[in-house]
Order: sequence, then structure tokens, then C-alpha cells
Amino acid sequence: MTIRYPNGRKYRPQNQLPKRQRVGNETYRNRGQTLEDELNESNQYYLSRNIAVIHKKPVPIQVVKVNYPHRSAAVITEAYYRTPSTTDFNGVWNGKYIDFEAKETKNKTAFPLQNLHSHQVEHMKNVYKQNGLPFLIIRFSTLNRYFIVPYEMMLAKWDRMNDGGRKSIALKEFEDEAIELQLGFMPTIDYLKGLASLLGHEA
Amino acid sequence: MTIRYPNGRKYRPQNQLPKRQRVGNETYRNRGQTLEDELNESNQYYLSRNIAVIHKKPVPIQVVKVNYPHRSAAVITEAYYRTPSTTDFNGVWNGKYIDFEAKETKNKTAFPLQNLHSHQVEHMKNVYKQNGLPFLIIRFSTLNRYFIVPYEMMLAKWDRMNDGGRKSIALKEFEDEAIELQLGFMPTIDYLKGLASLLGHEA
Repeated sequence: MTIRYPNGRKYRPQNQLPKRQRVGNETYRNRGQTLEDELNESNQYYLSRNIAVIHKKPVPIQVVKVNYPHRSAAVITEAYYRTPSTTDFNGVWNGKYIDFEAKETKNKTAFPLQNLHSHQVEHMKNVYKQNGLPFLIIRFSTLNRYFIVPYEMMLAKWDRMNDGGRKSIALKEFEDEAIELQLGFMPTIDYLKGLASLLGHEA
Repeated sequence: MTIRYPNGRKYRPQNQLPKRQRVGNETYRNRGQTLEDELNESNQYYLSRNIAVIHKKPVPIQVVKVNYPHRSAAVITEAYYRTPSTTDFNGVWNGKYIDFEAKETKNKTAFPLQNLHSHQVEHMKNVYKQNGLPFLIIRFSTLNRYFIVPYEMMLAKWDRMNDGGRKSIALKEFEDEAIELQLGFMPTIDYLKGLASLLGHEA
């Protein structure tokens, strides 16, 4: 039998996972762990250089039971993962409100839109209306290619799906319409540079 | 013996708490629960009216053990509260990046600065440098009075403490330098209106 997370993801025991995908500091995630690490590193770099203040939000957890052992920290003994109501990362970059979701796919030809939740798209619509800057960062992990998907592009593909069209964004469409990011050393993923080119100015 | 949270807060069993302070949807908090509820309501109102997109961040929790019972959701069976590295609330309001911490005190004459953590003050400094809008919302719960503390005021009092001065902000100083908020119906706490008056324009 296949065991699944509340969000429908399949469970794989930790010792069956490649090392890079095992539990990090914060929580166990089947996908996204390495991209998340790279983005956390990049954000740490941006913060240390006064370039931007962008953080990953904690994973929302519903706490049910807490124990309070003598002379030590409170221990949560029953809790459940909740579905996030917003995107993963947000913050401020030179006065601009930044808000994005980061996703990895092993697919080599397209990004399946089922990786996005409708409430996340809804959140990005709301952010856009408030003159914030919402976008996606997508990693094709098998190809090791990274893209920024601008809000308008994401929305066009999302609407296409809801109009009965294809349920994914083709790699070719990424190549034509998204912004490809090159990996670097410091920062690992310089997505603000990519964003600056999107906005038509220098980072 | 007094049992304390990892952050030094005293533990009080739930059944000894007034009803409004008991566990909410998200997590158990000794202080801040009611103010937090009021702010969540206000943010819900702002969102529904397309006024702003501001959310409370989830409480950061370090997950240690997870069980995967057959045919049901993953259960976290060992986890610990972590110290938040940023403020509680952030979002976007008409292009402006909003970032604030909300605190309650039962003190009737002053707000003790020990309620703030140095890393939160550091975070607000970084936000300010990026042209974001950091501030505090303080509730004197016994007096039922609410104030917005602008960033500059907070920093002045914080620096005063670090220079050997008083370790709190006097109520009189709130009355003279902060922005007092009146409770309403929709939204409960119209802090964006207070913020607009701080910025010198209409909300």
C-alpha cells in the first residue's frame, strides 16, 4: 500500500531517499528540499549584503498535544501538517514586495501545474493587485535548469488549463517566455538579477 | 516549580486560562492570542476588500519524528518550538512592504522591552534599510488600549535601554509619540488607517 501525505504526496521512508533529500532543519519534504536549501542560502547572502530581506515562511503545523517535562523545553507530541494558504517565500527588495513559490520537478519536458494549488495562485493574484511582485521559481531537477516564471506567464498557463487546455507548462515555453537562471557561487541562485532583467533594470 | 517555554514564558495549563486565551487553530500561546485573533480578523477584512495582503507567519516548529499510520495523515509525534527569526506579520499594502510584530502586555504603565527579541529588532532594521515599513502593534490588555509604535520610536527606546536607560516604554510615551488605535467592527483593528496617518496620507 502506498502511504500518502495529507497533500497527496507519496511517502518514501528516509533511508530510501537520496542523501540530499533527507530531513533538513525544518521539516521533511519529499520534493523541494534542495531547491529550498539553495534559495535559503541565496537569501542569506542577500541579507548579509543588504540587498534584500527575503525569508522562507515556516511550514504551518497544527499542534494538538504538548507535554511540559520538568526543567526542559515543551515537547509537541501530536501535530499535523496543514496546507499552506500562501506562497513559500516573501520579503522586501529595495522597496518592492517580493512573493514567490519555489517548485522542483523531475519531469524533463514540462512542469505539471498540479504542483501549484489554486489558493496559491489566488494569493499571487492578490499580491499582484497590491503592486507586489509575485512569481515562481521552477527547477527541472533532472536537467538541473532553473527558471523564473513571471506572474503573467503563470496566470496565462493556469487559465489555459482551466479552459480545458494542457495541464502543464512545456519546457519549450519556459525557454521562450521564462527567465533562465544560471547557478553561481555567491549567491547560489541569483534570482534577483533575473528579476531585475524582467523589470528592465540592473540588479 | 514553574515550567517555562523555550523562550522563557511561563506555562499555564489550558484549563486555568481564560477562555479567550486557550489554544486557537494554530498553536498554544500564553500571550498574544487575542491580539493575534483580532489582527487575523482585520487582515481577513483587508484581503476581502482588496485593501492589503497581510498574513501572520506560521509558528516555526522543529519536527523530529513523524509517524505514517496506514490510510491516514502523517502524525508528528516529536517536535519543538523554535525561536522565530523575524516578526509575526508581513505582507503588501498598495505596493508598500508591511512588517510588524504584535505584542500584548498586562502592565498598566509601561511596555517592557524584554518582550522584544534582539533578532526581531535586527530584522526590522534590515526591513527599514530596504524601504519596507516596519512597526509594532502593542496592546495594553488591562487598559484595552492599542498603539502603533513607529520604527524610529521603537529604535530610540531600544537604543536607550542598551545605553543603560529604562528597560520599557512608558504609557505616557505611547500617548505622546505613538499612534493610538480605536477598536472598530470591520475591521476590528484598523491599523492601516493608523499607518496612513503616520505616513501623512489617507488610507
